[in-house]
Amino acid sequence: MIHVSSTPPAPVCILGLGLIGGSLLRVLADAGRPAYGYNRSAATVDAATAAGYDASTDLQATLERAAADDAVIVLATPVPALNAMLPAIAAHAPDCLVTDVVSVKETVTRLVEQHHPRARYVGGHPMAGTAHSGWEATDPALFDGAMWMVATHDDTDPADWLTVAGIARAAGAYVVPAADDAHDRAVAAISHNPHSTAAVTASVGAGESDLALRLAAGSFRDGTRVAGTAPDLQRAMLEGNAVALLNTLSETIDRLTAARDALRDTGSVEVVVGDGHRAREKYEAIANAAPQPIEGVVVGDAGWAGELRRQAHQGRVWIG
Amino acid sequence: MIHVSSTPPAPVCILGLGLIGGSLLRVLADAGRPAYGYNRSAATVDAATAAGYDASTDLQATLERAAADDAVIVLATPVPALNAMLPAIAAHAPDCLVTDVVSVKETVTRLVEQHHPRARYVGGHPMAGTAHSGWEATDPALFDGAMWMVATHDDTDPADWLTVAGIARAAGAYVVPAADDAHDRAVAAISHNPHSTAAVTASVGAGESDLALRLAAGSFRDGTRVAGTAPDLQRAMLEGNAVALLNTLSETIDRLTAARDALRDTGSVEVVVGDGHRAREKYEAIANAAPQPIEGVVVGDAGWAGELRRQAHQGRVWIG
Repeated sequence: MIHVSSTPPAPVCILGLGLIGGSLLRVLADAGRPAYGYNRSAATVDAATAAGYDASTDLQATLERAAADDAVIVLATPVPALNAMLPAIAAHAPDCLVTDVVSVKETVTRLVEQHHPRARYVGGHPMAGTAHSGWEATDPALFDGAMWMVATHDDTDPADWLTVAGIARAAGAYVVPAADDAHDRAVAAISHNPHSTAAVTASVGAGESDLALRLAAGSFRDGTRVAGTAPDLQRAMLEGNAVALLNTLSETIDRLTAARDALRDTGSVEVVVGDGHRAREKYEAIANAAPQPIEGVVVGDAGWAGELRRQAHQGRVWIG
Repeated sequence: MIHVSSTPPAPVCILGLGLIGGSLLRVLADAGRPAYGYNRSAATVDAATAAGYDASTDLQATLERAAADDAVIVLATPVPALNAMLPAIAAHAPDCLVTDVVSVKETVTRLVEQHHPRARYVGGHPMAGTAHSGWEATDPALFDGAMWMVATHDDTDPADWLTVAGIARAAGAYVVPAADDAHDRAVAAISHNPHSTAAVTASVGAGESDLALRLAAGSFRDGTRVAGTAPDLQRAMLEGNAVALLNTLSETIDRLTAARDALRDTGSVEVVVGDGHRAREKYEAIANAAPQPIEGVVVGDAGWAGELRRQAHQGRVWIG
């Protein structure tokens, strides 16, 4: 059993104030938690400051402040920026607990091991986003009821895990404990693959004629929505999860090929439509019901991490 | 130039009172136009009658009434039911103008030629629908601002065309003139293909684990929405447009395979993401702007049908 301190929660230092990082700064600060952020863009920092938030363009000063007040550092930049961010943390705030909100977990874990091998690091990933990006798109309600993966391995420090999970909960999200590789396969299947099929579906529709786009209604509008996400953000997500995405793309191609061949040879799309309908019903049953809490686990007890992961694979969430 | 009569518009007789046919009955009757319907289900007819609409379960009596008041007959049943409906029209209301709201146009045209070869027939297809079906899902605003294809061939009778286009306009829709084959290719590209990719995307996501469905957010929710449509309705749509759908499925498979191979061989998804983003932007430019009207064509003048089709291929609509 972990000793739960009655001292105030640690300050949170957020590096990167785009949609995710900026929304996190807003929801935490709005709730009265000490929170401040860094962004390299003066325009973003000016906008955040004008809105009453504590933000700076000075990375070293921000990290020295985090070291001084033992803040939790949240990496909220695109993956490529981590190559500069992590060495700076290792230099100026080496003892701070580090988490991140940067999508694919095996990639971030590898970069942490490379650039800041002594880091206290517990990765995370909130499943929240829109087709928009940047500070102007931030919303303190962005995480409300969202799922927030927190990396949960057999060697994860339980006190650090509770601190990171507590940030997710403070932002209004449910905590989904998972191992890095399971998370990365899951997001390939339910995010990066949908981005890929949306892009291709949009291209096929637009390739037909303006008549086709003129006739397009709900199925095309909703099915291709995420193809409108900024291409560089999509590339960073998809290419950063290449191995898992290769598997889901291959399965997608196999299923579409089977559907095409069945339609050609038998005139029927019964299997693809039936499978898709059952899958959607299963999703709706999970998405529309109140999340079932993980039960009977004390974080820090023997086997806690494995038991959290096991229950998460049943679709359950940790609510503390 | 066609003589436009100042007599009241013809009554409308709608065969099938599901989502589309029922919504059409409601919007026309609500606007004061003589309109009545047939449905084989007593429960549907009872619901329509209780709501104040003129409906019957007696097909022959309904058709005799249509013959007596020279109504326009609107086929609004699933395709299989047309094999019984069309011979009944040929027997009891052979001289009535017939149109339809039954998706794929080459299929319906072939059934009309087979079962009612002397029909005055001008096909149609409103691009409106939801994942729900049946009278309880009807909505008189369903067609408001929607696109409504009206079959426009070189041998189409211009007065009959104007009558059918007038029904679409009375329902609140814009008229998109098109040939049957161009329409069927277009809906394969912007509706039947999106249904296919939604089904496959849902299956790949659900096949991963309940953890994956637990983490699913907006991209999965919107990208798989239409997979929730009743499987028999989806099958009827997709299998009814098999030839055109085979082509778009093959193009979809080719594009996904190219994306998979590029990701595997170069680590990049630049092409698929970029193409998809441009396609989505093109769609949004067409969908979000006020429709541009077809101009400079008098229906019935030499070459009118070809000129309507040509301007529709530019994304323009006929507003009368």
